Amino acid sequence: MITCGRYIRSILYLLLLISVQFGPHAVEGVWPLPQAFTSSPERYPVNSQDFYFVYGRQSAAQQGCSVLDTAFKRYFSLIFPDHNSGSPADRLSWTIYLVPFCVPDNLSISAGKASLNAETVWGAVRGLETFSQLVYQDDFGSYFVNKTEIDDFPRFQFRGILLDTSRHFLPVQAILKTLDAMAYSKFNVFHWHIVDDPSFPYQSSTFPDLSSKGAFHPMTHIYTQSDVRRVISYARLWGIRVLPEFDSPGHTTSWGKGQPGLLTPCYKGGTPSGTFGPVNPALPSTYRFMARLFKEVSSVFPDSYVHLGGDEVDFHCWRSNPDVRVFMQKMGFGGDFTKLEAFYIENIVNITSALNKTSIVWQDVFDYHERVTFVLQRTSLSVVEVWRAGCYLCEVRRVVKAGLRVILASPWYLDQPGPTHNWARYYTVWPLAFKGSEEQKKLVIGGEVCMWGEYVDATNLTPRLWPRASAVAERLWSDEKQTSSVDKAFPRLQDFRCKLLRYFNLFYPLTYLTFKELNLMVQAKRQDAQCFLAMSAVLHADVFCFHFSSRRGIQAEPLYVGHCKHEYQGI
Amino acid sequence: MITCGRYIRSILYLLLLISVQFGPHAVEGVWPLPQAFTSSPERYPVNSQDFYFVYGRQSAAQQGCSVLDTAFKRYFSLIFPDHNSGSPADRLSWTIYLVPFCVPDNLSISAGKASLNAETVWGAVRGLETFSQLVYQDDFGSYFVNKTEIDDFPRFQFRGILLDTSRHFLPVQAILKTLDAMAYSKFNVFHWHIVDDPSFPYQSSTFPDLSSKGAFHPMTHIYTQSDVRRVISYARLWGIRVLPEFDSPGHTTSWGKGQPGLLTPCYKGGTPSGTFGPVNPALPSTYRFMARLFKEVSSVFPDSYVHLGGDEVDFHCWRSNPDVRVFMQKMGFGGDFTKLEAFYIENIVNITSALNKTSIVWQDVFDYHERVTFVLQRTSLSVVEVWRAGCYLCEVRRVVKAGLRVILASPWYLDQPGPTHNWARYYTVWPLAFKGSEEQKKLVIGGEVCMWGEYVDATNLTPRLWPRASAVAERLWSDEKQTSSVDKAFPRLQDFRCKLLRYFNLFYPLTYLTFKELNLMVQAKRQDAQCFLAMSAVLHADVFCFHFSSRRGIQAEPLYVGHCKHEYQGI
Repeated sequence: MITCGRYIRSILYLLLLISVQFGPHAVEGVWPLPQAFTSSPERYPVNSQDFYFVYGRQSAAQQGCSVLDTAFKRYFSLIFPDHNSGSPADRLSWTIYLVPFCVPDNLSISAGKASLNAETVWGAVRGLETFSQLVYQDDFGSYFVNKTEIDDFPRFQFRGILLDTSRHFLPVQAILKTLDAMAYSKFNVFHWHIVDDPSFPYQSSTFPDLSSKGAFHPMTHIYTQSDVRRVISYARLWGIRVLPEFDSPGHTTSWGKGQPGLLTPCYKGGTPSGTFGPVNPALPSTYRFMARLFKEVSSVFPDSYVHLGGDEVDFHCWRSNPDVRVFMQKMGFGGDFTKLEAFYIENIVNITSALNKTSIVWQDVFDYHERVTFVLQRTSLSVVEVWRAGCYLCEVRRVVKAGLRVILASPWYLDQPGPTHNWARYYTVWPLAFKGSEEQKKLVIGGEVCMWGEYVDATNLTPRLWPRASAVAERLWSDEKQTSSVDKAFPRLQDFRCKLLRYFNLFYPLTYLTFKELNLMVQAKRQDAQCFLAMSAVLHADVFCFHFSSRRGIQAEPLYVGHCKHEYQGI
Repeated sequence: MITCGRYIRSILYLLLLISVQFGPHAVEGVWPLPQAFTSSPERYPVNSQDFYFVYGRQSAAQQGCSVLDTAFKRYFSLIFPDHNSGSPADRLSWTIYLVPFCVPDNLSISAGKASLNAETVWGAVRGLETFSQLVYQDDFGSYFVNKTEIDDFPRFQFRGILLDTSRHFLPVQAILKTLDAMAYSKFNVFHWHIVDDPSFPYQSSTFPDLSSKGAFHPMTHIYTQSDVRRVISYARLWGIRVLPEFDSPGHTTSWGKGQPGLLTPCYKGGTPSGTFGPVNPALPSTYRFMARLFKEVSSVFPDSYVHLGGDEVDFHCWRSNPDVRVFMQKMGFGGDFTKLEAFYIENIVNITSALNKTSIVWQDVFDYHERVTFVLQRTSLSVVEVWRAGCYLCEVRRVVKAGLRVILASPWYLDQPGPTHNWARYYTVWPLAFKGSEEQKKLVIGGEVCMWGEYVDATNLTPRLWPRASAVAERLWSDEKQTSSVDKAFPRLQDFRCKLLRYFNLFYPLTYLTFKELNLMVQAKRQDAQCFLAMSAVLHADVFCFHFSSRRGIQAEPLYVGHCKHEYQGI
């Protein structure tokens, strides 16, 4: 078996048995728009019976690379949703072809040849998405692809979507469905805001009480270790990283239920009021607890980044607590609670740094550090997520001037109450429109759609996210000059939204199988299922099997009056 | 077979094998709130093995009444969604019981006895909904119902939801799903705004070109005669009337494609501009066409009401057309186009009156008539739907002062862009808060939720409607004094929303069967399907079969942070 890590060059061929035609049907385009895109009216019929994806002979990735093996099957179904004579697995042949590679990633479709050259397997997965969007059906159901030449690469390396599983619990199925849709828009980071004040659904192996006492329900409203691994494995197949957030010291009410002594007891009139505030930063036990929790988190989530939160800390409770005030005196913080907050975060950053993780924090932490830089080292911060409304580019400028990297979220709070069809507002955001050097602008590593959970759960998540998040995706992927017009984007986004309704291939998980069951299944020739081995960093070996289906679309809401050839049908 | 028309008294028993317990689990309540409701902590176990719905012996409705026979099966599944040992049909016994009837409709649950007395079969269907909401499960999965006494009746007789199938096409399945959800909130009118400017999806047997040229797609984006009958039959089983709207003379762009000569040619600089305006009111052919169309509509839709539209007529095109101006002169209308509009509507109302239909019009028509009452008789108008924003109660007052009936829609445009969780805004509407006599207030016959289609199709219809439309439902059903507090309503509506997620029983239609196929199916003992005969007014006999399923919930969006015991799971 050939490995296919992130930095291995992947080269593969799309083998088309090609005959040239000139058809009236124009290419509808690709969303998000590739960096360089030329196509011609010359078109070639594509027939599912004669269609194969094959690895190029010089490709570093070859059969056995589970990401691409799976992507081939998946995109075969996406391109031919009505192809059902035999399972997709039967239809694919894994011939090895020899091609040179090139940078940037390139997709070339011409008479007699179609090839996809990508520097990484992840680039190859993106290229397959692009290719799938180029294939279309005429009114008689025949498939075509036009002569096309594409060079492509993302404008920003961080293109994220935040889901909040604390304010409402999202079933794993809803998360997997979102990962599918993310891949179609070339998002590559799932920011999992997994816990917060209302509930703690993450089932910790080190501190099981956190979820058994802090989740909405200890059995039905939790993410088990296996659930988390399933999400990570699934995301990986789509080239999506999973960035976990364990937000503290604020937003931790639910933590207190399973971890007595962690939160600060609030005082009223000199006595404890019975309520609790943020994590207690004055106790050594707090840091021992956090070190153990983040050690677990670091091993469960393999990504090299971890999000530490740090936003919206309310100082009232800290101020009311005599022990906290004594600690402030001892540390020489006087009455400045921003110093206490900065001290706390500094400690948590050090804990995660020791675990070889890079920390991301919400902008509040930067703001505090900026003010208290004379007592604390700023250098431990590295990535700041800008989320507050107002002049968010002013904040971006301040952060990059301090030499830190930025993720921009402020303009993309898609959960916010408001007109739900205002995609143009999210599209016309210019993340680099601030005064700064080229070096400073390079510190803006990307952006993120935030889907907070106050008013969102699995019932309305999908239509609220899509296709509006796709508008953000184009801003983060494509060249700004080529995508500055809302009017030009509108018909392309409408077309892409129709593709989302139809071009859908849900891998829904079969039950979590043991190796023995897997063998039975393979013996029974369940060719419609795709199984793969997922190894987590702590050497849990899981076998996850996913089932092919192309019956349902992404429930992406309409932009305006009109129709799609294939409407969303509900069940 | 015993008929069960709208005005036959229906009396039935809920047979419970009852044993008394006093449980800690409080009754969560019923939505919309019944007129008189008392319950006690005394509770009785309910066991699906021993549970039967039976007709009272003195009941005018008996076995063979398809509405109630079906409702019994349906509500058995709703109450016991996890009951799957044998099909529901096997579990129900049709014993006849003797009970007296009473008015208002009454639901009584006490030790040893549970009975539902209703004046009509429709009241009985509503009572079954109420009963289903009273049954609950404890943490161990056992079912209970508390000692309860309910007297109930609706505050308003017209409780409608408008769906717009012109701006986006809604698959029949999405309409049926909405009918299910409507019944759970006791809505009783489906206002089908079936055609409008963007498309004409109604397939007319008299004028097939209207849809073949005016629909988004002539084959896939239309409602066939059979589709329409299916919707009507299905709605009837839930006690929901189908009110068709064929809006004219404005909002008719799509009509012009299949009916040349119907629309007014607009002029620019003395010559036709190539564009078309409203229906041409100056041609006799217009009225001949409308007479034939409404003759068909009247026979396809059995309801005694028909909605004629009449809103938002733009006079620019009429004014530009020399033939229209000549006609205005001839009729003595001078330059007052409101007279022309009034004249047109007067003719259409006369056409539908001759077909024994009562007309409903949008408020614009009343406003015109009010101004031009000196030339036209006002008496032909009877029901006015108030839709414009601003002081809508001022308009309501004007209409009832003129002796006409009112349906209120202005405050309930749920499709409107804006905060999507603002249910309280729709709840705190007081339809009778205007100065007027008791007689005048009685002319307000109800209200309607409007779900226009600019930004809505099957992808987002359900979460946008529910549970916000349920807030309107309580306003239209319940006593205003008992339901004036948003704070008191909030936990009840949250609880009801959780019921919507879970307590769901989709009847999805099997293919449309011939009698022969039906016989084959019955021979094959497809006990899980429910078939019934639907007779339309023009003597088309259809057999529709619906399948039982209780696996999925209504995709009703959350009101705020929290959880339901049974979350919406997606697929």
